[in-house]
Amino acid sequence: MRIIIDAMGGDKAPEEIIRGACDASLTVNATLVLVGREDVIKENLAKFKHDQSKIEVFHAEGIIEMDDDPMVVVKGKTDSSMSEGLRLLKENGDAFVSAGSTGALHTGATLKVRNLRGVRRAAIAALLPFDRPVLLLDSGANISVTPDNLLQWAYTGSIYMNRVMKVESPVVGLLNNGTEECKGTPLHVETYKLLSECGDINFFGNVESKDIPYCPCDVLVTDGFTGNIALKLTEGMSKFMLKSLKSIFTASVTSKLSYLALKRQITDFRTRYDSSTYGGAPILGISKPVIKAHGNSDARAFKNAILQAERFAESRACDEIEAALAARKAQKIE
Amino acid sequence: MRIIIDAMGGDKAPEEIIRGACDASLTVNATLVLVGREDVIKENLAKFKHDQSKIEVFHAEGIIEMDDDPMVVVKGKTDSSMSEGLRLLKENGDAFVSAGSTGALHTGATLKVRNLRGVRRAAIAALLPFDRPVLLLDSGANISVTPDNLLQWAYTGSIYMNRVMKVESPVVGLLNNGTEECKGTPLHVETYKLLSECGDINFFGNVESKDIPYCPCDVLVTDGFTGNIALKLTEGMSKFMLKSLKSIFTASVTSKLSYLALKRQITDFRTRYDSSTYGGAPILGISKPVIKAHGNSDARAFKNAILQAERFAESRACDEIEAALAARKAQKIE
Repeated sequence: MRIIIDAMGGDKAPEEIIRGACDASLTVNATLVLVGREDVIKENLAKFKHDQSKIEVFHAEGIIEMDDDPMVVVKGKTDSSMSEGLRLLKENGDAFVSAGSTGALHTGATLKVRNLRGVRRAAIAALLPFDRPVLLLDSGANISVTPDNLLQWAYTGSIYMNRVMKVESPVVGLLNNGTEECKGTPLHVETYKLLSECGDINFFGNVESKDIPYCPCDVLVTDGFTGNIALKLTEGMSKFMLKSLKSIFTASVTSKLSYLALKRQITDFRTRYDSSTYGGAPILGISKPVIKAHGNSDARAFKNAILQAERFAESRACDEIEAALAARKAQKIE
Repeated sequence: MRIIIDAMGGDKAPEEIIRGACDASLTVNATLVLVGREDVIKENLAKFKHDQSKIEVFHAEGIIEMDDDPMVVVKGKTDSSMSEGLRLLKENGDAFVSAGSTGALHTGATLKVRNLRGVRRAAIAALLPFDRPVLLLDSGANISVTPDNLLQWAYTGSIYMNRVMKVESPVVGLLNNGTEECKGTPLHVETYKLLSECGDINFFGNVESKDIPYCPCDVLVTDGFTGNIALKLTEGMSKFMLKSLKSIFTASVTSKLSYLALKRQITDFRTRYDSSTYGGAPILGISKPVIKAHGNSDARAFKNAILQAERFAESRACDEIEAALAARKAQKIE
């Protein structure tokens, strides 16, 4: 197996990315192809313990910046680590991982690697790290969507959660502004109907955002605008609450002592609800596994994203998504 | 001043609602007109200390339930406490407070009391209780909106924050999926342009949801669908984090002792970020002040909503909203 890695993408690239790849090389059963400036990569490889037999370096001169227009990945910066990495994925790779620009990665994956047959729009699927992890898709790529897009994501999300996350019979919810089936815009009413009629989707119904932390679902479908608002607000609120908690603990000597007594539990709590424990966000619907690691990934987060890419590629979930969509199409024609 | 109160609306009605009104009667400079079943109201009034000279009772037989169609307030349940209360508001009242169905209250206020001249859609404006309180509108009533609706809400929200919340020069943000002006749907791009060009709106720009807890704005405008997702997720995440915190504290004897040491700070934190400290959500754009108290309001929350209604009525913010919209219309015609 060949996992292609964008060594230059992300806020902490290249050092933390390469360090994460070095750590991963000690456990993965795959070749990791680091794409980026050869001298920079080699200099960093020298710093961290790694399994040399599992690492290859592929030179790419350019770098896609976070504020670049996403289209540069296919026009303008085709010499970049992301663009070259996606080409290698298409030609001879099994998975791709990048912590670079989400927009560029989605555009590049769609245009250079192509969608699976039958997939209209690939979705970014973020895993919300609650007690029952929830795959939220789309979480930012597709701003305007159709009921059919949401239906496809119900399939792709269910298959990912089953194959890669080992959830036996994933339950799908529709993010909405109320639980009744008449709620939301015409998009939601129509999608509710479609999902209810699908015998092979385990549809729960509408889910209100207040219930996301205790979500009874494994997959939550929504348009990319709403998904982005929900994903980022979850992150923002966690950060705010943890920061407020810290200010409670540092208020006095007594409270500082209490902090020491609770330190382990608080660290456990942080780790448990840290999304990078699971890796990154798969872009579902692309013909090969593509993982978007968080922009601020450190070595640990990036290593987890690589391990996730390995599980995703091994699972053959992409084949199953294609088969499921073909079966649905055949059903509809009958 | 006459503040009309829906004594039968809300999860904890009538007891907690009437208790809140009794508490408020001891401080307000207004007559509180309790609308609902006379015998029930009188029975509850007997239980709680109140200023008799400030309370009137008005009998209404019916009750609007949470799952009733919102239209029953104008057709079908016109004998209900909410419907009769809105009639009294229109005829001879200065403000109205209800913890009943949001949909029915918005519909009833719009159709029975009417919008201010020039207002196309009244918005539900929820105050998010962060260090810098943020007025989020619309937070649920108007699912599909136009740039012009959002612009009007920028005005109404700014005037409310200035007049009622005493914020000197309120800053307005547009909730979006990125900070660049090209972000979002055509609605967002067009609204960004409109708000930028308004000399009398203090426009900050786009605000991402992750920044809501540290929002640099006093007013955040959005469509009612997105606003509802954001509002409820803020509530859901707070609840989730506080519950998780509790489980950390009750894990062991040591942690329980730490809890005792920190009890006061934790209670302060809860109170500080409890939206009911501010009262309820004003419905902005109606010709008279209407406050939607949270459905699960207890006496304290409902009392705060009554005090807020008093401040709102005293502020004459409704007159100012009408004047501001008329001035903008005149400007456009010139």
